[in-house]
Amino acid sequence: MKNTQTPSGMPIHKYSQYQDTFDVSLPDRTWPDKRITEAPRWCAVDLRDGNQALIDPMSPERKRIMFDLLVKMGYKEIEVGFPSASQTDFDFVRSLVEENAIPDDVTIQVLTQARDHLIERTYESIDGAKQAIVHLYNSTSVLQREVVFRSDKQGIIDIALHGARKCREMEKTIPGTTVYYEYSPESYTGTELEYAVDVCNQVLEVFEPTPERKVIINLPSTVEMASPNVYADSIEWMGRHLNHRENVLISLHPHNDRGTAIAAAELGYLAGADRIEGCLFGNGERTGNVDLVALGINLFTQGIDPQIDFSDIDEVKRTAEYCNQLSVHERSPWAGDLVFTAFSGSHQDAIKKGFEAMAADAAAQGKDVNELKWAVPYLPVDPKDLGRNYEAVIRVNSQSGKGGVAYLLKTDHALDLPRKLQIEFSGVVQAHTDQEGGEFTSDAIWGIFQDEYLPSATETEKWGRFELQSTRTSSRLAGSVELTIDLRDGDTVSEATATGNGPIAAFLTVMRDRGIDVTLYDYVEHALSASGDAQAASYVELQVGERRLWGVGIDADIATASLKAVVSAVNRAIRTSAPDRELAGV
Amino acid sequence: MKNTQTPSGMPIHKYSQYQDTFDVSLPDRTWPDKRITEAPRWCAVDLRDGNQALIDPMSPERKRIMFDLLVKMGYKEIEVGFPSASQTDFDFVRSLVEENAIPDDVTIQVLTQARDHLIERTYESIDGAKQAIVHLYNSTSVLQREVVFRSDKQGIIDIALHGARKCREMEKTIPGTTVYYEYSPESYTGTELEYAVDVCNQVLEVFEPTPERKVIINLPSTVEMASPNVYADSIEWMGRHLNHRENVLISLHPHNDRGTAIAAAELGYLAGADRIEGCLFGNGERTGNVDLVALGINLFTQGIDPQIDFSDIDEVKRTAEYCNQLSVHERSPWAGDLVFTAFSGSHQDAIKKGFEAMAADAAAQGKDVNELKWAVPYLPVDPKDLGRNYEAVIRVNSQSGKGGVAYLLKTDHALDLPRKLQIEFSGVVQAHTDQEGGEFTSDAIWGIFQDEYLPSATETEKWGRFELQSTRTSSRLAGSVELTIDLRDGDTVSEATATGNGPIAAFLTVMRDRGIDVTLYDYVEHALSASGDAQAASYVELQVGERRLWGVGIDADIATASLKAVVSAVNRAIRTSAPDRELAGV
Repeated sequence: MKNTQTPSGMPIHKYSQYQDTFDVSLPDRTWPDKRITEAPRWCAVDLRDGNQALIDPMSPERKRIMFDLLVKMGYKEIEVGFPSASQTDFDFVRSLVEENAIPDDVTIQVLTQARDHLIERTYESIDGAKQAIVHLYNSTSVLQREVVFRSDKQGIIDIALHGARKCREMEKTIPGTTVYYEYSPESYTGTELEYAVDVCNQVLEVFEPTPERKVIINLPSTVEMASPNVYADSIEWMGRHLNHRENVLISLHPHNDRGTAIAAAELGYLAGADRIEGCLFGNGERTGNVDLVALGINLFTQGIDPQIDFSDIDEVKRTAEYCNQLSVHERSPWAGDLVFTAFSGSHQDAIKKGFEAMAADAAAQGKDVNELKWAVPYLPVDPKDLGRNYEAVIRVNSQSGKGGVAYLLKTDHALDLPRKLQIEFSGVVQAHTDQEGGEFTSDAIWGIFQDEYLPSATETEKWGRFELQSTRTSSRLAGSVELTIDLRDGDTVSEATATGNGPIAAFLTVMRDRGIDVTLYDYVEHALSASGDAQAASYVELQVGERRLWGVGIDADIATASLKAVVSAVNRAIRTSAPDRELAGV
Repeated sequence: MKNTQTPSGMPIHKYSQYQDTFDVSLPDRTWPDKRITEAPRWCAVDLRDGNQALIDPMSPERKRIMFDLLVKMGYKEIEVGFPSASQTDFDFVRSLVEENAIPDDVTIQVLTQARDHLIERTYESIDGAKQAIVHLYNSTSVLQREVVFRSDKQGIIDIALHGARKCREMEKTIPGTTVYYEYSPESYTGTELEYAVDVCNQVLEVFEPTPERKVIINLPSTVEMASPNVYADSIEWMGRHLNHRENVLISLHPHNDRGTAIAAAELGYLAGADRIEGCLFGNGERTGNVDLVALGINLFTQGIDPQIDFSDIDEVKRTAEYCNQLSVHERSPWAGDLVFTAFSGSHQDAIKKGFEAMAADAAAQGKDVNELKWAVPYLPVDPKDLGRNYEAVIRVNSQSGKGGVAYLLKTDHALDLPRKLQIEFSGVVQAHTDQEGGEFTSDAIWGIFQDEYLPSATETEKWGRFELQSTRTSSRLAGSVELTIDLRDGDTVSEATATGNGPIAAFLTVMRDRGIDVTLYDYVEHALSASGDAQAASYVELQVGERRLWGVGIDADIATASLKAVVSAVNRAIRTSAPDRELAGV
């Protein structure tokens, strides 16, 4: 069994191994024998490092939504901007302070370079806050010293010390605010360790850490340049050589260039760090910052309280996607649309047996199943603990090789279903196969789809309680839309009017006025290109009462299509006899 | 600086730490002192583990495209299916064998459970191949023994041994095929190490490894349950306790539930493994298999030849997206749309200085810049080595807080630009700001956009060489489309006809007939919801000669919009005076 791999021809001569340049060897390392026993101090940097990596940085409104989300989840240290670099950031920090938006137990953090006028502006921005962390940085790497700053080691230390002293001076100008300090030797992973610790120790002398006013030393992998064990070794080394260690909080700030930021954070934490900076779902420059959601839920699945609330992960995801205008990938740890989905028959079988065994154990012990240890194969966490469901997806035509349900709907009907709707509809089809057996043709699948999501051309009764008969919209100057509709509700048709920031929002108000408890979770639309007549399809995911489910609307007018989709979901929720997504599980 | 974090209220009592259940302690571990010096043996499992995790499994045509891609990149061991579980997989394996599609130095691998009739079918599928790896597995975990198999330890060993013996028997039925063996104690990470090594050693006695016919022992983290250092400890432990170690290839198969699969593969490889199984861009069950692209390019950036060709990462990405019908995320390591993009002004400045310093060094040494070690801040690899470009993105309105270019186009003109087009257009805008200075209003940005991508209502001259004047399409039964157009080329309008599997493909043929060397890289379309009149926008990324660039088309007919987009890109490539994406860099 010979290895037949051959050289790739790629220009490897342009690169060399990290350890050939940076000596990080620690034969007496202790971190691999350690275990994590409690949550680190978290610092969420979505509003600074995350925001600066967006093509469309967040508007003030979106920033505030993100801030409120982070607070609600339980983050107590939140980097809210780089106020001296951007008027937007400055104004946002001021708005938080002036509107008393910062809870007493939350500390905002602001980033600044080590330059006098920027530091002055930074202190202006936090004046009036109860407390704040001023995060001072300058770049210390070999490459940046040579190429960017054209300065020697002492020159770079002088920049840091000058900045630190300026901070101490400015501190006196805002006596009402308790100021804490964080210092980052930026591009730490490109810096010699001996030099990095020298800079940090000199800065610490200026900041004078005490037990009451510890100083944060943040050691960023500004660019991730080596495997995570090397970063961990460097963190343990720094912990041994930093002065005032007992009054210093070592902070990690891993970027994800090599795809190992989560591991770098975990191993660095084992290696003695106290604190981790990151972003929800790993937003941030290039490949992103470390993913705070993955880190937190990783702890949770080990029985360690993350001290952050992840019990409604879809809501967290939806809000982050709105604020960042970036999607969370289908396979993103603990949160992606596909991560609680089992496709393989043997996995589905094992999961089913796992659920059954837990139910039997609970019955035998006279306990609720939620009192037991979670033990279901292929599901490392109970999806319900994160507000999700387990979904088994069947392959209608896997034997025929013609592809699955979603493929047939796309090919034959130009409908491009969102992933979660594909999964939901797979459960609907499964309910039919369970009842009727055998395989389904594309026509049969289309029949099931129409029957479930679209109004019947002939049978009003079957479609459900509501039917949209006409719509008119008018936009107002303030960005709101007035919607007027003719709506059949049971046997009665009446006109209704409502206002919202869009037609869907207005229509949800109409629905709520009729006693339907409804919240929008997701919304996708596309043109039906294959049909040629420019029809559009809309898909909405709604929470209707206790149920989370999808609706579909098709119309030549995209706005009308979206309202039809809402009707579709609401009618489905009301039809008690319809197969629902619970049937898709076990 | 008190830690004010509070309990989350999440049900941590349902979970316990991995090491409380599984004793993986190895105080004398040696892997943290090791360094990677050469590529592992790779095995790509996209066609099996990846494929089985798709809502729409690949069609035979897509499977073949994926297989050919993997071969072209340099993978020599490719798991091509689970032929006994699916007729589709069986037929695909047969088609590879019968069409002589497998190069002599490539070994296909097929998965089978340890059951007689499945093993028989497996050997049928590979009959006639020059060589093949039969990959036998059964689940060995504590949980699956109890819940799924209701069997004791010996019972599970018997399943494995019975399967292994059946394989040895069946081997004789296909004497023309050299059969190699791989055994997986499936759900290895949920198995006691002593038991896992016992099962493997007993299976090895049946497979009788020799230097010429080594046996692969694959140790999958079927579910990733602990941090990657724990997995690495377990691998080093197994390496010490496996018999016939010199004739055994230890293989890793990390899943990514905790987001640390890449690290698990790297640390497990340090710990003595010989081989790694994974998928391109981390496709696979739930959160996916380990990402082979990240692992390979991680090696490359350390000056180690991955023995896999990543020199056109966009082509690899495009093909994988087509085969999997899943997108690669914008922040996916080394390949995402945003990973070679710098947003921050200080990053852009440092990168610019890095490029300048390299150019100066090369000049001083009388060398080509590609002979030097790569040394540019914030860019851990030269994007050109992967067929990409560095892109600096500016913030047109960051000071005004109104959002960026893409935001304004979306809000005011309902255009939802793909990320890479957003980046490209940012460069076009930057060229204008560099010339004209100052900030741009939304109207000014729209003017620049129209001027760059859309035909002028009045000035034909300015728009460029080609103009689409009418289109007719007719579909044929075989799934191909015949396109007839009236096309202005310079001053001459003429009719042209071509056939393709879609209108764009047909139109590209027309273009090639006119001497334009053009290849399609990406294609996105959407309805213009805000306009209310159901117009559609199309965006295409083309390679035109040496240049990669985007075009935009808007039309009530989505097919016509896409052809207009092609014209837009081709005209842009031909217009020599237009600012192009090179200007966006440094």
